[in-house]
Amino acid sequence: MSNIMGEFLGTMILILLGDGVVAGVLLKKSKGENGGWIVVTTAWALAVVIPAFIFGAVSGAHFNPALTIALAFLGKFSWSLVPQYIAAQMLGAIAGATLVWLTYLPHWKETEEKAAKLGVFCTAPAIRNTTANIITEVIGTFILVFGILGLGQVQMAPGVNVLAVGGLIFVIGLSLGGPTGYAINPARDLGPRIAHAILPIAGKGDSDWGYSWIPVVAPIVGGLLGAIVFNLVF
Amino acid sequence: MSNIMGEFLGTMILILLGDGVVAGVLLKKSKGENGGWIVVTTAWALAVVIPAFIFGAVSGAHFNPALTIALAFLGKFSWSLVPQYIAAQMLGAIAGATLVWLTYLPHWKETEEKAAKLGVFCTAPAIRNTTANIITEVIGTFILVFGILGLGQVQMAPGVNVLAVGGLIFVIGLSLGGPTGYAINPARDLGPRIAHAILPIAGKGDSDWGYSWIPVVAPIVGGLLGAIVFNLVF
Amino acid sequence: MSNIMGEFLGTMILILLGDGVVAGVLLKKSKGENGGWIVVTTAWALAVVIPAFIFGAVSGAHFNPALTIALAFLGKFSWSLVPQYIAAQMLGAIAGATLVWLTYLPHWKETEEKAAKLGVFCTAPAIRNTTANIITEVIGTFILVFGILGLGQVQMAPGVNVLAVGGLIFVIGLSLGGPTGYAINPARDLGPRIAHAILPIAGKGDSDWGYSWIPVVAPIVGGLLGAIVFNLVF
Amino acid sequence: MSNIMGEFLGTMILILLGDGVVAGVLLKKSKGENGGWIVVTTAWALAVVIPAFIFGAVSGAHFNPALTIALAFLGKFSWSLVPQYIAAQMLGAIAGATLVWLTYLPHWKETEEKAAKLGVFCTAPAIRNTTANIITEVIGTFILVFGILGLGQVQMAPGVNVLAVGGLIFVIGLSLGGPTGYAINPARDLGPRIAHAILPIAGKGDSDWGYSWIPVVAPIVGGLLGAIVFNLVF
Repeated sequence: MSNIMGEFLGTMILILLGDGVVAGVLLKKSKGENGGWIVVTTAWALAVVIPAFIFGAVSGAHFNPALTIALAFLGKFSWSLVPQYIAAQMLGAIAGATLVWLTYLPHWKETEEKAAKLGVFCTAPAIRNTTANIITEVIGTFILVFGILGLGQVQMAPGVNVLAVGGLIFVIGLSLGGPTGYAINPARDLGPRIAHAILPIAGKGDSDWGYSWIPVVAPIVGGLLGAIVFNLVF
Repeated sequence: MSNIMGEFLGTMILILLGDGVVAGVLLKKSKGENGGWIVVTTAWALAVVIPAFIFGAVSGAHFNPALTIALAFLGKFSWSLVPQYIAAQMLGAIAGATLVWLTYLPHWKETEEKAAKLGVFCTAPAIRNTTANIITEVIGTFILVFGILGLGQVQMAPGVNVLAVGGLIFVIGLSLGGPTGYAINPARDLGPRIAHAILPIAGKGDSDWGYSWIPVVAPIVGGLLGAIVFNLVF
Repeated sequence: MSNIMGEFLGTMILILLGDGVVAGVLLKKSKGENGGWIVVTTAWALAVVIPAFIFGAVSGAHFNPALTIALAFLGKFSWSLVPQYIAAQMLGAIAGATLVWLTYLPHWKETEEKAAKLGVFCTAPAIRNTTANIITEVIGTFILVFGILGLGQVQMAPGVNVLAVGGLIFVIGLSLGGPTGYAINPARDLGPRIAHAILPIAGKGDSDWGYSWIPVVAPIVGGLLGAIVFNLVF
Repeated sequence: MSNIMGEFLGTMILILLGDGVVAGVLLKKSKGENGGWIVVTTAWALAVVIPAFIFGAVSGAHFNPALTIALAFLGKFSWSLVPQYIAAQMLGAIAGATLVWLTYLPHWKETEEKAAKLGVFCTAPAIRNTTANIITEVIGTFILVFGILGLGQVQMAPGVNVLAVGGLIFVIGLSLGGPTGYAINPARDLGPRIAHAILPIAGKGDSDWGYSWIPVVAPIVGGLLGAIVFNLVF
């Protein structure tokens, strides 16, 4: 398998499992309805862990343009591959979101609230405030990239390192996800938002394009800051 | 121990622990009553992990006809053993469900709702829709088999691989279990359904045979698709 | 350290952390009040894992007369040590329960319900039924001992085996704990019950001695059955 | 990186992720609002695990003056470094709490209750009782330091030892955190309390200085007792 295919499939599975849990918690009549924050954050952590295991050796398992760009900035990844990686991540995210739509097919009609349906696909701020929302996403992605780089230089038994990255995603969600829903990944947010705009979701509303640039720009900035600080201190 | 005995005992423990948690959450007066989706999904993950550790070296720890058939299709398991494996899995599931009935013996009478009692044994769709229910189970089992095959080729410290499979079961439940309760395993659903029909459960209703073929057929299809796609891309 | 001291200290920590979480969930004004079944079962699993790590090499980390007797029955542990082990486990459990009383010192007076206060120390059945309660505890301890023996013969990276035993305790609680609160250990139940009888707990009721023999006898029977079946099949 | 820088950054991340989850659960309109005790305790465990992995080789990953002093007392750490370590931990905790304030910037104004806002930063007793609160913190930190020393001498596959320490933090929170919110670390409590006093938090109240000495003194005493008992028995 090519590394590009690995990024596509890995991001597809990430979004199927990640957006899937939001569907399970938000959509009406789902058996996981109102499962709570622990359900959401546990699943997003595992949604990274599973494809990270499977595609780690194939593509490095970025699944996140903010990480890809940060690694390229540090010289740990070739800039020439960045556009293809980001394209694969975006397309994978759109494919994964489409699978979520199919998995929960009869539940969209049962769910009145348009914001809940959009919330399955992409993030929205709890309190809409451009500066504050950017700060939150910058800090979250700073920790994500700093943490991945930091964990990456620790010697662990094979496999435990991937569990540690899962713990990092888990705690970012639990602790920093409250204000904006922790996009911390442009593909995770923009890909499913495009899917939401395209797919014939029963009773959907608009795709909140006014907010859409924040979970793209802020994670890239936060990731670069994480990479820079990591390079300064280690 | 023979591999057939391993499949029988392993599937028995899987269902004792898996259906057991549903009993604990759904039956009246149980200390785990209304424990929530995190309780259900955590326990089902561990219900796979424990017998997978114990019987992995004995039988390969399939516990699931959809996996057995997919592995045979890929040539990784002998077709000649498939009927015996499936028989052992079905009988193990019936035995495990019987143990759940015994473990929660005085709670059946306390629980009025017949659907809850059936729900301890086998799955039911949140919204009954043949096509949609099939799609959900196909996608869930696709990810199950694709994931098991993918994790199986990753080098991990001994034991961590089984934890990773547990994470896969966990996240399938959390993220894809909302619409149909994630059977993703014909023996997990049909075996306990037969037990429900046979056992003298206090105040039980019918066993919902009209739905029973979906969690048998759809997981087999999904598993085969997972195997095929895995073979294509890896 | 002697193995007897290891059993004493390990069981003390087990009960401090295990009964501690029940105090945290049941006692009024606790920050963990109404934390739910996931809180209780997670903590009991870790309450075994932590002392199992620390004292495993010292004493084998039984912390449970049902396990000690089952291992002696199988010839894997000397009968001559059994009385001392059980004494150490009982005294450790009493000491641990005393520490729980101290940790939650001002909360006993705030909690009206006498059954809740007793429930911090020892188990009580959700539905009182001698035969059924015995069956539940027999099945739970059967799986405990069968599982420990089964996990014990699997080759895992150092430390992962203890995590797997933690997973076993976790899932026994989640899945089989609903009817009786999963004593599955005579020392875990009788030791703290004695502590409850002795300690000057504010506004305590009786110690429910009528039930006390079930979580002693049934786990021993279940453990022996687990050992016998394990020996037969492996 | 110097070990002092490691302690600073590690404690900063600990408090960002630890106080962050309390913000996520307590502050109004947060997506994690009312996430429950399992959310709080899971995140605090991971808040230790992540920087422990990243900075373990740099500084030993104390992040806690009670642990630093206990290790110095045992002769496992140089007394000459203790003042610098504690200064770095305190400054790191202040920096981490400041990042939490920034991450949840628009949520402070939305939250009326002053005690909730202070509770994000530092601990407060569920029932105010000097003797009892000291006992609880002494017991909690006793187990923390005894446990870290005990786990430290167990041979585990690389990385699993850090997960075990995470399990220790997790269960201390779940089981012993109910009465006082488990400070068990002077820097974790005093640092963010200073941040609360300094930062321009919207609608904040006082910083409860009357209680502030307990989560400083009691953890140091408990840690020393843990070290002494550990030395006596092992």
